[in-house]
Amino acid sequence: MIQRMFHTPEGVRDVYNGECQRKQFLTRELKDVVHSYGYCDIETPTFEYFDVFSREVGTTPSKDLYKFFDREGNTLVLRPDFTPSVARAAAKYFLEDGFPVRLCYQGSTFINNSSYQGRLKESTEMGVELIGDDSIDADAEILTMTVEMLKKTGLSEFQISVGQVDFFKSLIEEAHMSEETVMELRELISNKNHFGVEELIASQKLPSKLEQAFLRLPQLFGSSDILQEAKELTDNPRALAAVRRLEQIYEILKLYGADRYVSFDLGMLSKYKYYTGIIFQGYTYGSGSPLVKGGRYDSLMGHFLRPAPAIGFALVMEQVMNALERQNISTDIENRSALILFDPKARACALQLAREKRALHIPVTCMAMDTIRSREQYIEYGEKNHYHSILLVDENDKITTIERKTDQ
Amino acid sequence: MIQRMFHTPEGVRDVYNGECQRKQFLTRELKDVVHSYGYCDIETPTFEYFDVFSREVGTTPSKDLYKFFDREGNTLVLRPDFTPSVARAAAKYFLEDGFPVRLCYQGSTFINNSSYQGRLKESTEMGVELIGDDSIDADAEILTMTVEMLKKTGLSEFQISVGQVDFFKSLIEEAHMSEETVMELRELISNKNHFGVEELIASQKLPSKLEQAFLRLPQLFGSSDILQEAKELTDNPRALAAVRRLEQIYEILKLYGADRYVSFDLGMLSKYKYYTGIIFQGYTYGSGSPLVKGGRYDSLMGHFLRPAPAIGFALVMEQVMNALERQNISTDIENRSALILFDPKARACALQLAREKRALHIPVTCMAMDTIRSREQYIEYGEKNHYHSILLVDENDKITTIERKTDQ
Repeated sequence: MIQRMFHTPEGVRDVYNGECQRKQFLTRELKDVVHSYGYCDIETPTFEYFDVFSREVGTTPSKDLYKFFDREGNTLVLRPDFTPSVARAAAKYFLEDGFPVRLCYQGSTFINNSSYQGRLKESTEMGVELIGDDSIDADAEILTMTVEMLKKTGLSEFQISVGQVDFFKSLIEEAHMSEETVMELRELISNKNHFGVEELIASQKLPSKLEQAFLRLPQLFGSSDILQEAKELTDNPRALAAVRRLEQIYEILKLYGADRYVSFDLGMLSKYKYYTGIIFQGYTYGSGSPLVKGGRYDSLMGHFLRPAPAIGFALVMEQVMNALERQNISTDIENRSALILFDPKARACALQLAREKRALHIPVTCMAMDTIRSREQYIEYGEKNHYHSILLVDENDKITTIERKTDQ
Repeated sequence: MIQRMFHTPEGVRDVYNGECQRKQFLTRELKDVVHSYGYCDIETPTFEYFDVFSREVGTTPSKDLYKFFDREGNTLVLRPDFTPSVARAAAKYFLEDGFPVRLCYQGSTFINNSSYQGRLKESTEMGVELIGDDSIDADAEILTMTVEMLKKTGLSEFQISVGQVDFFKSLIEEAHMSEETVMELRELISNKNHFGVEELIASQKLPSKLEQAFLRLPQLFGSSDILQEAKELTDNPRALAAVRRLEQIYEILKLYGADRYVSFDLGMLSKYKYYTGIIFQGYTYGSGSPLVKGGRYDSLMGHFLRPAPAIGFALVMEQVMNALERQNISTDIENRSALILFDPKARACALQLAREKRALHIPVTCMAMDTIRSREQYIEYGEKNHYHSILLVDENDKITTIERKTDQ
């Protein structure tokens, strides 16, 4: 029993030393990217009333939410996702003038999943929401930011795979399928199970052109060429409009120079009900889970009584950190740290030296040397802990820079 | 019922716009201060097993903790305080070589208090822990960092009030008081209730010198002069050592130039059991609650099976923000943001312009102008939202800088 206090709970962990330094450095860098696009920070509470993440709004099944009660007996939930919270806040404080709002956030999200592998129960997410703008410019800006952020992490080989839920939705509308059949079909297409799709579609007795479109769907992924193919597969005006929109967005991505990181996948279907237009996921080698997920959710704001189109994405820092590690990509953090070892008699001199260095933005650790340890032990400590420079101040205020024995 | 989803739960709130910008800017600035003293970031989980914050360790009564269960039925707690978590982590990952460890953290803490006024239920804390160092240098460094951080917020009038729990503890030891009497006395002294103290002490039939010491205790606060007075009040060796330590620390604070912000209060007693040496609180005008709280807790690490002296503090960002607002102290954040309004025909030109500005670290919002709004409406939007510059790109790629009507 008592053992528990020495460990973190299952599925959450401590982050420290170099890993923490890299994570926080990257977080700052990524924040600079979103700020450079004019996005403004918002902080929402770590927990919300259950209703904010209810089935109609949220992305996480109730059983996977961390739930508890306030003193009045209301159910509170640790946020599994920022989007509903930011939408709630935006509905309350913004959008009065009808102009778009650009918001960004960063913090922990919590999913009480039962699997012991894969995603942690607490993740660090960074994301943006562009609310009140249904234009192709908005879609392209969001996709470009996703690319810019992943580039900023140091990754060079990654892909943003872009789908369009309207394409599939308009085809199933045309096919008059039952809700149950649609769910089954979604599953089969998501798993790229070609034979399963074939079997199910055959049983539906659809017009041959529509049948062909469904059969091709699991293969409709790749470069922008598949957009041309998709247009040839259907005469459905809404499906065609969905593809044409992707083509328009792609043209803007070329202007941004982001096109080479983007591919398309019309068979990408989200289980999240709130997506309405483009949806996308960012992948890299050595990481099964997406580093970033996003999409357009034009109906979500309506749940908070202020209907407005919206699009956003969230990047999972842990996934990014894992990918960097597996690909052996180091994060270039300048190390200027200094260790000042001083004889207690030389305290005034040592603290003055430290002050001067700190004024030059050099991180300085000051350590008074006692007589229990030898000078060599102190120096060894400094070397082991990767200080960029080690300075020794002796009892006569003489300052000596220690030559490092080891490479840094 | 449904109304709940439009609001944040009682006692927590959204932070956005200028307030959020200031908060995050200050957080970065304060982090730079702690890093400049060689402190390294650590992140611990938002929730821990209940035992980490149990009565022997923690600072928050169980009834004020947010509690819930994991899938195995263990009780989890949202951290009310970082210190026990950081101590747990430090016991596990550090201190093997016996050298001190300097850690810093930042994040939310949660207290399910029942009062509707005062402290929020979710607060943002920033703090440090210096573990494995029981020296006066450690105490002085921590007090100096407290001063440096409060200076960095922009506050100029503040005081760090420093107590020493050992002084009181050695007097009550000498007086052989019952646990119950001690609790009553603590309460009276904390409330600076002179008459109450007088009455209680009279009932104890103490030697006259000890009686005088207790009677003076509620008044033993002010400049360093009170340290001399305290020494004259007692012959108790441990009490005298406690005061002499404060004198030594004060001498080091002079070297740091932090002495003018520090005063002493030997009647300052903490209800937190874990403090063992100096304790301190930082106050300013217009804020009843302390902005920062800290102290030495040499016995806490022992709970995590790695005994080590330790000292730390936590600053509550919301208290700092409130104080700045009440004192009308503005935070100087450079505003270089640009709004680029473009005709959709000039998209390529506008995005190129935006790219150039972003490369110069200028945050740029790009907005395609539709025909629903007039140019004047777009420009008015830019002025209202305090963009530093507004640029208009017309259908012929002509770029015009808009002269601001309003002051910035």
